[in-house]
Amino acid sequence: MNQASNVNEATIREPLGIIDTDVHQSPKRKQDLLPYLPKVWHEQYLTYGSGLANVFPTPIGVSRKDATPEGGGPAGSDPHFMLKHHVEHYGIDYAILTGGSEASFALHPDLDYASAVIRAYNDHTVENWLTVDPRFKGSIAVNVSDPEEAVKEIERLGDHPDMVQIIVCSGVRAPYGQRFYHPIYEAAERYGLPIAFHPGTEGKMYPPTPVGYPTRYMEWHNIIPLTFMAHVNSLVCEGVFEKFPGLKFVGIEGGVAWLPHLMWRMDKNYKALRSQTPWLKRLPSEYIKEHIRLTTQPIEEPERPGEFLQILQMIDAEKTIMYSSDYPHWDFDNPKVVLPPMPRELKARILAGTAAELYGLPLKKTGKAEVNS
Amino acid sequence: MNQASNVNEATIREPLGIIDTDVHQSPKRKQDLLPYLPKVWHEQYLTYGSGLANVFPTPIGVSRKDATPEGGGPAGSDPHFMLKHHVEHYGIDYAILTGGSEASFALHPDLDYASAVIRAYNDHTVENWLTVDPRFKGSIAVNVSDPEEAVKEIERLGDHPDMVQIIVCSGVRAPYGQRFYHPIYEAAERYGLPIAFHPGTEGKMYPPTPVGYPTRYMEWHNIIPLTFMAHVNSLVCEGVFEKFPGLKFVGIEGGVAWLPHLMWRMDKNYKALRSQTPWLKRLPSEYIKEHIRLTTQPIEEPERPGEFLQILQMIDAEKTIMYSSDYPHWDFDNPKVVLPPMPRELKARILAGTAAELYGLPLKKTGKAEVNS
Repeated sequence: MNQASNVNEATIREPLGIIDTDVHQSPKRKQDLLPYLPKVWHEQYLTYGSGLANVFPTPIGVSRKDATPEGGGPAGSDPHFMLKHHVEHYGIDYAILTGGSEASFALHPDLDYASAVIRAYNDHTVENWLTVDPRFKGSIAVNVSDPEEAVKEIERLGDHPDMVQIIVCSGVRAPYGQRFYHPIYEAAERYGLPIAFHPGTEGKMYPPTPVGYPTRYMEWHNIIPLTFMAHVNSLVCEGVFEKFPGLKFVGIEGGVAWLPHLMWRMDKNYKALRSQTPWLKRLPSEYIKEHIRLTTQPIEEPERPGEFLQILQMIDAEKTIMYSSDYPHWDFDNPKVVLPPMPRELKARILAGTAAELYGLPLKKTGKAEVNS
Repeated sequence: MNQASNVNEATIREPLGIIDTDVHQSPKRKQDLLPYLPKVWHEQYLTYGSGLANVFPTPIGVSRKDATPEGGGPAGSDPHFMLKHHVEHYGIDYAILTGGSEASFALHPDLDYASAVIRAYNDHTVENWLTVDPRFKGSIAVNVSDPEEAVKEIERLGDHPDMVQIIVCSGVRAPYGQRFYHPIYEAAERYGLPIAFHPGTEGKMYPPTPVGYPTRYMEWHNIIPLTFMAHVNSLVCEGVFEKFPGLKFVGIEGGVAWLPHLMWRMDKNYKALRSQTPWLKRLPSEYIKEHIRLTTQPIEEPERPGEFLQILQMIDAEKTIMYSSDYPHWDFDNPKVVLPPMPRELKARILAGTAAELYGLPLKKTGKAEVNS
């Protein structure tokens, strides 16, 4: 740099805003949910929970050891500790709370039990998290296996000013394009709420791959994105975005770099086979770029970081990709260092710009000197 | 160009060799298999075939209309017509015959029936195709659901000079890394034969996605690569390439551009979770690049062709990717025009170099003027 003013601009700039689109909060104890849950379900909930088995436990635990609150309880269960340990530590403008295991109750055979637990989780979030700090924004969990009840839950909470999206689990009974789910989409569009899906239930309803069960957690985790590809494919081909043109979907924690391949394969097949989907008016990739958002964590890290930037350019990342940390889980991504070198404008869009638009959240400048951005 | 000699060199060069790694041959009629099939299975074979239902028929037929032989019979059933219509028309050095539906018999509950039909197909190929022209090279189909019989079939035909690989279907009972299959891999390594898997049976054993069934052929076809990712993931994580260091796998007709994502996700998870796979000594991506080959058809065609070239560079395509046409099927890729602009050396590797090494096939220069290469 030749001029002092330029040096100054380059080294002390406004920090970029940060919206963390995947932060996991939970009650401190199962008992904390009981005030929100009809008494008839208490014993089942306390004793059996979701009823889902876990044959692929992580060998290193689910959460960061340092995220355990000072006052005790599991990681992610204390809003004040989370504010200090995560939100304020990284200067995060908004933390989109995506919950714990509640959405997974949608796989329970008893729809009434599942919907009751999911409602209780939502009430617990509203009363114990959204009241604590305006930087916390909530996701309305719904029982996606019972669209009628899901619509009622959206109507019950959809006007809450701090509820910014609907959340469901990604491992479910049928691909998300299918008509069974459309009443939920009508309600989501009516309330202007995106629908996010998050992994965890893969393999609990059907085998998690088209060829059966993998052997252990690492293999299971490696192929979580298969579920995401199946949903994106279905959402587009079934014409969901022609039927609900205002609807957006968010794929959380399912990877990013598979999107070019899926878009290209879908576009190519559409040209030859579109007689099967006469309701589509544009290329599949056009629907994807307009209606699908993916979050970054766990971000792909090629040996040559420039290759990930090439992938981002293939998928119009400035409008499709949003930063997420997955706090407080083990594979957390630090917003200050996780993104590879890229133009500042793109970085600003990924760290906050796209999420601010999607969720209708105003970004304020903080005036602090920028570090590592 | 300034010099006439340069113009000459640039426009009239030796043509590149071409090895087509996916060409489908079949008997003309089901009856043609009967001489090779024990009589006890004749009625079942003629009446019920593989016994597999097809709820996702292609709306435009399976084969190119112009590939129907002049003498009648289905496309791909006449070796002399195929030589004229495909092999000689494009100047193909070798056509790797991958068969029809025989590998799919591995999903039949009766292992004896399946193995008998598969043996009959192999014998039909040996007698009716490999004898016709040295440019035809065969794949030994095996009943992958019965490793003991599969090994016997490899031992029966593995020394045939024109059999260059083993072929199985991709939609099967379990991911290909699992120990159930290892006796087959021991035999394949012993005979120096790669193992190829080819789609078609996806969704016939389990749902073809982790969230159930898609709705129609286009959606089903769009997500065939999910099966391939599941197999590559399993093969690496289960340590197949430490146990069988000479073994190579070929993923036919399952796409290419998903590989960077899978490699990066596997490498990242390996760093955190490798306590689960202590037998691995290198990064997953290193095993993939050394032991997995993918074929091009149906090639991905982004709006900006340079993006596909970027993908090829991410996966060391000069040693991992091989040209295939899928002749005579509807989504055939023409070797003269299908590859996007790329360095001539890379093109030569994809069109023939890597396949020549893998299958041990000598390439001769033909001396014809090059067209479109």
